Amino acid sequence: MNVSTVPVADKKAALARRYGEDQTPPAGPWNDTLALLLEHRSVRGYRPDPLPPGTLETLIAAAQSAATSSNLQTWSVVAVSDPQKRKRLAEIANNQKHIEQCPLFLVFLADLSRLDRIAKAEGMTFEGLPYVETFLVAAIDAGLAAQNAVVAAESLGLSTVYIGALRNDVEAVAQVLELPKGVAGVFGLCVGHADPKAAAEVKPRLPQAAILHHDRYVVPDEAAQRGAYDAKLAAFSKRNEMVHQSWTERVISRIAKTKALNGRDRLRAALSALGFPLN
Amino acid sequence: MNVSTVPVADKKAALARRYGEDQTPPAGPWNDTLALLLEHRSVRGYRPDPLPPGTLETLIAAAQSAATSSNLQTWSVVAVSDPQKRKRLAEIANNQKHIEQCPLFLVFLADLSRLDRIAKAEGMTFEGLPYVETFLVAAIDAGLAAQNAVVAAESLGLSTVYIGALRNDVEAVAQVLELPKGVAGVFGLCVGHADPKAAAEVKPRLPQAAILHHDRYVVPDEAAQRGAYDAKLAAFSKRNEMVHQSWTERVISRIAKTKALNGRDRLRAALSALGFPLN
Repeated sequence: MNVSTVPVADKKAALARRYGEDQTPPAGPWNDTLALLLEHRSVRGYRPDPLPPGTLETLIAAAQSAATSSNLQTWSVVAVSDPQKRKRLAEIANNQKHIEQCPLFLVFLADLSRLDRIAKAEGMTFEGLPYVETFLVAAIDAGLAAQNAVVAAESLGLSTVYIGALRNDVEAVAQVLELPKGVAGVFGLCVGHADPKAAAEVKPRLPQAAILHHDRYVVPDEAAQRGAYDAKLAAFSKRNEMVHQSWTERVISRIAKTKALNGRDRLRAALSALGFPLN
Repeated sequence: MNVSTVPVADKKAALARRYGEDQTPPAGPWNDTLALLLEHRSVRGYRPDPLPPGTLETLIAAAQSAATSSNLQTWSVVAVSDPQKRKRLAEIANNQKHIEQCPLFLVFLADLSRLDRIAKAEGMTFEGLPYVETFLVAAIDAGLAAQNAVVAAESLGLSTVYIGALRNDVEAVAQVLELPKGVAGVFGLCVGHADPKAAAEVKPRLPQAAILHHDRYVVPDEAAQRGAYDAKLAAFSKRNEMVHQSWTERVISRIAKTKALNGRDRLRAALSALGFPLN
């Protein structure tokens, strides 16, 4: 792949879409893969068209090609086709209709049960399993795998959206998918052809100066950064979401009150019940 | 991008490298991005050559283009150049010399401090911050971002390796990088030109039948799968790592004894000290 001959103007335009004209970072190398990554947007409406044969297996091969801590491979995935199960999962996730609509719905699992079965088969106990560290490895590795699947899907002209709201009730998800002890759904992923009616612009992000530090963490001038970003997000949300919500308003609506977690304040207890004591 | 004219034979070869000839999943669509994803390997030796100008900003733009839960953007990153800091971080991570060697070393952070500063600026308390859910969102979003950076780096002919061993002592990492309360390093990432002496084959993974389920979790014939995979990994490890370790042996060495966590059994307490009570 390497650096291609894609015009630098395309890169500047892509960076401007992601950050706004005023916050475009310095241009550097550029190629088709970078263009694909920069163009990502989450899509919440899908055409019913099925995916080409072999697409699922291709996405899984991409997912399994991501790094995995010590090659432990502590994640698994369920492709959910059953309409009743889709309906139930959509209900758990605040009635997100695209869960029922998309041609492929994946639930990524933190899976320590596979290692526990090895322990049993070998007549051992794996002391490392009950720690928060080991759950975190499983959850992060599921994330790395899923992100590779997302890039793979988008390279094929497909769209995706992550469904974190499955964590509203991980015990119910475990019941629907018949998960054994030591397995928990960490998020879902819709994959399919975007419904043109659900098309959206690239969502602007915080400027790089807000998230990138050099050698030590220095709090930047956040008041100015946030003011500028609030205006960008409010304009984006007005154009794309038929609301007019600044970033600050969005953050407050999601995190200020425990109630807004939609049951995810119970996640610790629920994970414990599923076999993750998080020691 | 979409489906290109890359020969199907290339896909079969790529899948065979990842899974072994006997476990190659059905071929489906194929393109250059899929080829790039399938060819991933972690690299633990780097040439000292600096990266082309703008590379860091390009990787960060790719990272910020990944999905982030509710657009909360609860991650940050530190690019560490200071040789003394590199040395200290390498020590924390069991003396992994590539941390000192690579031209770019990134530490990805779960960062709830930015939201906490918004709360303070708005004269509020954000009730959602102390939950395990919110830390998990931050850690997974850091993972999605980092994986995009990895794909971006590899598209530019660079190599990478994740450094989970920074979690051996997240309090020490916080001290080195002067992290405020509510920020923790979740993993590091080396980026650079691979030293040809550190070249390795693509590492085989478990067969898709081991990790991919349909509608419900069904434990496959793991004894047979594991036997076959143990032989593959032992052969890989003999050719590439100058040891001869099966997958089962590797798993046991990493997870059977708490001592093998290298201090990560203390992660829960350490995160609590850094401002993540994980309620």
